[in-house]
Amino acid sequence: MVEEVGNILKKGGELFHPGLSVDCVIFGFHDNQLKVLLLKMKHADKWALPGGFVYKDEEVEHAAVRVLQSRTGLGNIFLRQFHTFGSPSRSDRQLNRQLLVSSGIEAHEGHWFLQRFITVGYYALVDFSKAVPRPDATSEDCAWWDLQDVPALVMDHNHILQKALEILQKQLNDQPIGYNLLPEKFTMPELQRLYETILNKQLDRRNFQRKMLGYDILNRLEERKLGVAHKAPYLYSFDKDKYAAALQDGLQQGW
Amino acid sequence: MVEEVGNILKKGGELFHPGLSVDCVIFGFHDNQLKVLLLKMKHADKWALPGGFVYKDEEVEHAAVRVLQSRTGLGNIFLRQFHTFGSPSRSDRQLNRQLLVSSGIEAHEGHWFLQRFITVGYYALVDFSKAVPRPDATSEDCAWWDLQDVPALVMDHNHILQKALEILQKQLNDQPIGYNLLPEKFTMPELQRLYETILNKQLDRRNFQRKMLGYDILNRLEERKLGVAHKAPYLYSFDKDKYAAALQDGLQQGW
Repeated sequence: MVEEVGNILKKGGELFHPGLSVDCVIFGFHDNQLKVLLLKMKHADKWALPGGFVYKDEEVEHAAVRVLQSRTGLGNIFLRQFHTFGSPSRSDRQLNRQLLVSSGIEAHEGHWFLQRFITVGYYALVDFSKAVPRPDATSEDCAWWDLQDVPALVMDHNHILQKALEILQKQLNDQPIGYNLLPEKFTMPELQRLYETILNKQLDRRNFQRKMLGYDILNRLEERKLGVAHKAPYLYSFDKDKYAAALQDGLQQGW
Repeated sequence: MVEEVGNILKKGGELFHPGLSVDCVIFGFHDNQLKVLLLKMKHADKWALPGGFVYKDEEVEHAAVRVLQSRTGLGNIFLRQFHTFGSPSRSDRQLNRQLLVSSGIEAHEGHWFLQRFITVGYYALVDFSKAVPRPDATSEDCAWWDLQDVPALVMDHNHILQKALEILQKQLNDQPIGYNLLPEKFTMPELQRLYETILNKQLDRRNFQRKMLGYDILNRLEERKLGVAHKAPYLYSFDKDKYAAALQDGLQQGW
């Protein structure tokens, strides 16, 4: 559903659940870097997480799926709700007022867009090579940023991003990762680099390989990586059934 | 803040953030059983999770703290946001309509209390022996229920409880538990029983003890449990600093 921004701002009070938004932290992996998809605002010299509002009869999670599809062109994305942000001071009324004014809409106090919003945060892991970043009606650009280069974002979006990253880091202890982020066939060093970029630290090569193989979610393929000068590394792929089971039940045997 | 229910229902539209509530899954441990605190509704023959609304200028988390204090008399409670429930079909308008009518309030379509609500779920772990359960304005009883005896609750509250329990079970793999739930001094079998009641399965005594001692968060005390006929078991207490660190950083060394 593509709507002109002025229309959305005018009719939002009738269309959307009041005081509620979703924000999506969309991670991709490319060139050995973890990246996050950001939008450049039209009416502010700032970047923001992709987000949106929830239609009055819409599942909150569906609103997040809608945002992801609109911004990346991808369906069937790995998506997880991770936290709801509920501080009364998180809304930036001045920013929203600017957007109203620039759209020729009277910014009266009671306007739905100037109220307090709480936001439900989702993170997504997407295939960088398949995503086609597209700005929304309020933005002029949509681009991948290296995690360490992310600038000051609007509102509490840096905080939301940081929280998503912390939860992703914790989940590495219990859940497999890589499917959707790596190509179908990958080397152990590529998988290690994914972990290192998420954890923001170097890992020991031997320990990493031993632990990862111990999880029993990888298939070692007969082929080796081409175009590598000396000893070509093995290629692996995820065993999809075991990967799905580990995602469901956790990697550790636990209690 | 104790308010008469009719007043809250009348003024709620001005007082509260629209379409938003909090619900609290309050766990306690007693008699070797995990228990959950439930409210008996006044105007329906059903039980419910304690919950409430969020004042227009209030942190969402503070609303959960307020609910906990009001229902248990306890401050400084271990409290975690675990999930936001956003299905459009989760609100029970008929139940809410009954409550309005029984309070002598006209249940017109636009009434704030008859709109769709999304709810932010929190779980709390409290000291059973110190909590003093108190009903709220809409309920006639507030009582602890054994987890396996919980009846059909209002709305999606069984689902919310189940989700809290699942998340608590997962967190046992990564976080210590027991502080606030066990007395200050406890035996290894008592700690094991806490894990067993949360996980709803029996654990091997030796493996449990070895794994638990391996986490290095317990102090073994000089005294042994009194009043035990044969070999009296050792008493333990949590090492508060190490417990707090494990809560922060996770139990597994991870990556």
